[in-house]
Amino acid sequence: MILIADNLQITNPVIQEAVEQLDPEPIQFLAKQCEKAGAEAIDINSGPLTPEPEKKMTFLVEAVQSVTDLPILIDTVNPRAMAAGLQVSRSHGIINGFSLEPAKLENILPLAVEYDADIVGYLLYPDSRVPANASERMEIAIDLHRAALQSGVQPEKLIIDPIIAPLLWDNGTLQVREVLDTIRQLPDLLGFNVRTIAGLSNLTTGRGSTNKKRLVEQTYLPMLAAAGLDMCLLNVFHSETVATASVCNTLLHDDVFAWE
Amino acid sequence: MILIADNLQITNPVIQEAVEQLDPEPIQFLAKQCEKAGAEAIDINSGPLTPEPEKKMTFLVEAVQSVTDLPILIDTVNPRAMAAGLQVSRSHGIINGFSLEPAKLENILPLAVEYDADIVGYLLYPDSRVPANASERMEIAIDLHRAALQSGVQPEKLIIDPIIAPLLWDNGTLQVREVLDTIRQLPDLLGFNVRTIAGLSNLTTGRGSTNKKRLVEQTYLPMLAAAGLDMCLLNVFHSETVATASVCNTLLHDDVFAWE
Repeated sequence: MILIADNLQITNPVIQEAVEQLDPEPIQFLAKQCEKAGAEAIDINSGPLTPEPEKKMTFLVEAVQSVTDLPILIDTVNPRAMAAGLQVSRSHGIINGFSLEPAKLENILPLAVEYDADIVGYLLYPDSRVPANASERMEIAIDLHRAALQSGVQPEKLIIDPIIAPLLWDNGTLQVREVLDTIRQLPDLLGFNVRTIAGLSNLTTGRGSTNKKRLVEQTYLPMLAAAGLDMCLLNVFHSETVATASVCNTLLHDDVFAWE
Repeated sequence: MILIADNLQITNPVIQEAVEQLDPEPIQFLAKQCEKAGAEAIDINSGPLTPEPEKKMTFLVEAVQSVTDLPILIDTVNPRAMAAGLQVSRSHGIINGFSLEPAKLENILPLAVEYDADIVGYLLYPDSRVPANASERMEIAIDLHRAALQSGVQPEKLIIDPIIAPLLWDNGTLQVREVLDTIRQLPDLLGFNVRTIAGLSNLTTGRGSTNKKRLVEQTYLPMLAAAGLDMCLLNVFHSETVATASVCNTLLHDDVFAWE
């Protein structure tokens, strides 16, 4: 399981200010901290970046790349920002992402072919509703897969996000298990070993004690890993969760075990 | 998932001395501490208890029952000690357990019918070797199930232990996943919702740092829970592991979630 830092977010006022001032330093600092904390990739969650989305996304990607060689996920709904980010990504950037929403099918999905990029597909309805269970997710996965193929995307470029829902939702605990079932069943459903990605912090969105939230994250992560999750977006500054992820990787791989 | 304390062991010199002196106090103290720590059942791992196995097991069960109403698992290879323990168990004691080993089939398994007790069946070869993978475990499960039925044990009385192997074994990490697969597949294989039990501390047997061992336990437990494990034997004084188990139960049940 590859750990992707979800820490670089435009909702962080320090990052927002840095983007507006085109000041790379806070972004470089954060990117270095993420790598140090165990990130194996960095998600640039930039929002739409208007006005001047190309300029701002180019700045963001270059700021991150100036201090780390980690792969980058470009996480914006703005196709102009997305294209600009992919254009300057040193290694192929990963598009995060598309869904069955018409605007995304039309404007984001084609960029995967144009830039030969991996692309995340969200298991969401066209109106962005979260499906209620695994079988609804499966139907959406089939539609997403078909849309990707029709767009010329090679299947191995697709990474599916089953969408972790907040535990606080009325069906929150049901969704916990439906997401696990989805991750387990997707390779059989699509007939190849499709990669999966999920955003762990969605689970603990909303009010709640920090300690309890961390323990919930730390408990759900091994379940996701054992279900076969390939990539996990998380706050890499939660050191216990990162340590747990490392143990997951040890337990779920074939190497002979040794206590370090 | 029900938490069973594995703390009451004859290998503990304090317990051994208490049994020899027929002094209930150290046993009562430990049993109360286990319940306070979150145990929902207590395993009495007594060894063979010779000489005078009946007297010693009666003493042990009565000592535990004098301070707690928690269910008791009687964990001995000695059929005379087992029978004596079952005889004085207030609620039906659970037999822990039998295997395909001829002496156990002959002397332990019949006690389940005689005392109308639940019985744990270990997925071990007749010579006590641990099977190498899930498919070997499945074959043994079929044999165990057949032996139990032939002996007159109702299927719902059977609790299967897939046998967690030490991580330090050459195939330790492989076994981690084979045990998970076994737990997932057993209900389909046997055609009913057979209960499962596993001993978590087997995983970290041998040398290694305590902190690392705890984290490994805490990471494997959610994987076991999500695979469907019904009962887990563990050291209930590992408070982080018990807290993790509680979150597992929250995540894997249908109740509406609330941060406490």
